[in-house]
Amino acid sequence: MNQTLAWIQAGSVTSPKGFLASGIHAGIKPGREKDMALLVSTQPAEAAGAFTTNQVKAGPVRVSQQYLKKGKIRAVILNSGNANACTGVRGIADAKKMTAETAAALRCKPHEVLVCSTGRIGVPLPIRKVLRGIKKCVKLLKPDRGSVAARAIMTSDTVRKEGAVRLILGGRRVTIGAMAKGAGMIHPNMATMLCVVTTDAAVDRKTLARVTSEAVEESFNRISVDGDMSTNDTVLVLANGAAGNTPLKSYDADMGKFSAALKLVMLEMAKKIVGDGEGMTRVIELAVNGAATEADAKKMAEAVVRSALVKTSWSGGDPNWGRIMGAIGASGARMREELVDIHYDGVAAVRGGMATATPPGRLKAAARRSRVSIQVNLNLGKGGYRMLTTDLSEKYVRINLGE
Amino acid sequence: MNQTLAWIQAGSVTSPKGFLASGIHAGIKPGREKDMALLVSTQPAEAAGAFTTNQVKAGPVRVSQQYLKKGKIRAVILNSGNANACTGVRGIADAKKMTAETAAALRCKPHEVLVCSTGRIGVPLPIRKVLRGIKKCVKLLKPDRGSVAARAIMTSDTVRKEGAVRLILGGRRVTIGAMAKGAGMIHPNMATMLCVVTTDAAVDRKTLARVTSEAVEESFNRISVDGDMSTNDTVLVLANGAAGNTPLKSYDADMGKFSAALKLVMLEMAKKIVGDGEGMTRVIELAVNGAATEADAKKMAEAVVRSALVKTSWSGGDPNWGRIMGAIGASGARMREELVDIHYDGVAAVRGGMATATPPGRLKAAARRSRVSIQVNLNLGKGGYRMLTTDLSEKYVRINLGE
Repeated sequence: MNQTLAWIQAGSVTSPKGFLASGIHAGIKPGREKDMALLVSTQPAEAAGAFTTNQVKAGPVRVSQQYLKKGKIRAVILNSGNANACTGVRGIADAKKMTAETAAALRCKPHEVLVCSTGRIGVPLPIRKVLRGIKKCVKLLKPDRGSVAARAIMTSDTVRKEGAVRLILGGRRVTIGAMAKGAGMIHPNMATMLCVVTTDAAVDRKTLARVTSEAVEESFNRISVDGDMSTNDTVLVLANGAAGNTPLKSYDADMGKFSAALKLVMLEMAKKIVGDGEGMTRVIELAVNGAATEADAKKMAEAVVRSALVKTSWSGGDPNWGRIMGAIGASGARMREELVDIHYDGVAAVRGGMATATPPGRLKAAARRSRVSIQVNLNLGKGGYRMLTTDLSEKYVRINLGE
Repeated sequence: MNQTLAWIQAGSVTSPKGFLASGIHAGIKPGREKDMALLVSTQPAEAAGAFTTNQVKAGPVRVSQQYLKKGKIRAVILNSGNANACTGVRGIADAKKMTAETAAALRCKPHEVLVCSTGRIGVPLPIRKVLRGIKKCVKLLKPDRGSVAARAIMTSDTVRKEGAVRLILGGRRVTIGAMAKGAGMIHPNMATMLCVVTTDAAVDRKTLARVTSEAVEESFNRISVDGDMSTNDTVLVLANGAAGNTPLKSYDADMGKFSAALKLVMLEMAKKIVGDGEGMTRVIELAVNGAATEADAKKMAEAVVRSALVKTSWSGGDPNWGRIMGAIGASGARMREELVDIHYDGVAAVRGGMATATPPGRLKAAARRSRVSIQVNLNLGKGGYRMLTTDLSEKYVRINLGE
């Protein structure tokens, strides 16, 4: 943490000025668990977004993508327990009803409201419950209910994911807050994840779009839990300018500070998602270096984090580097077997494509930590890529067996 | 089975005339389990092969690829318990020592002997034990020991995989036999699998190479257990001509019959591998049809069989078609969500990208069988692709946790 950037204790999406939130149980989920959240900016906010690149896109994703292009945003309405995906024309109509109902209560236009859903695919939304839920959400809006909203968007998550940082921009105190959900179906471009970032900074629209893309690329696009990409992934950034700073533009000296803070917040959310990965017992930091190009390094990193065999050996705390060799060799990226080095937490397991004389006990100790860092060096060029992922445990399978 | 093609009871690699085999415990595996096998043709055989496309290739793979180019083959020496992969120059030298030792005992040239290894990666072969084992193998050669050899190449396999068919070619009775091993690290191009096919048919060399490639493409390249591709995959076909038929050439009328029989034998071995998939509880037959091209259909089929989430839902017997939609949407192949149909054993789950009104109970019944057939239709074009795969169970994870 540098001097000008500090995490706020109990920070949330309502830590920045001019944001209200609420979370309620609308009856989408069984029992009494919260399943709807509303986030509102007291003044119209510039907004930017990043969405799943899956060709199968949920209704709310299509609607939010469309509305984002129309201008400033006042609110985001979210639900958990139902993804409103693979629900066809009705799914899009239901997502639009959610924005219209929210807009009516807030006295703004439907296209000033974005919408996110997460949960099981293929089941139509219980739209009456949802619309009643929206009215309840509006009534309960408060500037200290960011954490309630963060709880209401959880699905298989076991912990709330939120946080906020404070920084000084042009003499003004600016805050960036965030909430996220996601634990399974997590893979680059992007994850079954939702993340909403709020800031009271004033940021020029085009600039906000650019820094959002960059921050997503270096955070959510670098994590993987199970190699699956969802139909609903959404990252939204709302900047309402309530801090009173002069709107930031690309060429501003302070822009780098804001951009770094945004990346930090997103990376923290990404880490929380991996750290809460379904059934995970270890977090793995994988670094591929020395590849012919960055694209090659990325291809190899993704092949390793997708390999069921590699991930299972991580679960067992087994430094089975042979499986990593197999995965990178099958990745399609350039390599020369006889040049490959692999380290576990700095301990050499492989040198020149072969086992080192390192005592197995030392490697096992490194592979059995709750956080394992693995470095693969191709010794071919300068391409590097880092990813954060989890092991594949029996518990992951149990969680995902189905009903 | 048609009239001219019949499975032989207790068929093996020694069912065709002129083949001898043996299997022994050389001490590579702990305990008393067999870990070395030798297969010998009494007369020089034309041979063809298909090998892993992994860039990390085991020593024996490199040696066999090289020797296959030199001409006829007399023997194949195989070991389990150690893959002799990622063992560098020493690994290649050890593989050559295995061929030289075998050749010396059989009084042929080293390059007339092919070599296969399977087992853990990265550990040098205990070469003295292996060379002593070869001598033992040669002494025990018998024309009825195909099954002993099939047992000796098993690793995590729970059952022996072998078989043989008989057919009539140009009035002569011809036999094709095979043995295979493989249960995990199974994915197209190819699998952690070894397969040796023997036949007493006389087949022209170039023709044998062509029909071998075709048969591999339609059998071993269509199966997946865990999406991982090994460093040691090898399929070898030896045709020694002992049946006395006129050597088959590409333009022969009988060639189609031989080619069909070879495919049948390989497909049977492929099915046995999937049926013995590590920790598997169900076999899944996946058919993707109506894709824009066959390449697109293949891309989608491979995305589905690689998805941890889809495979886990299969384990739970959950007809969770939403995960299949997610996987094909993320595959990169062309699709239109609103055109997709998905059936479980002929029961419609999805029509036009959305849930049908089929009672969940009927879908569940289909998804809970030990053999589930799933049909995905993109309704876009004529591209189709079929794959055979397994579910991902807690047991798979347990098996692969490591030592």
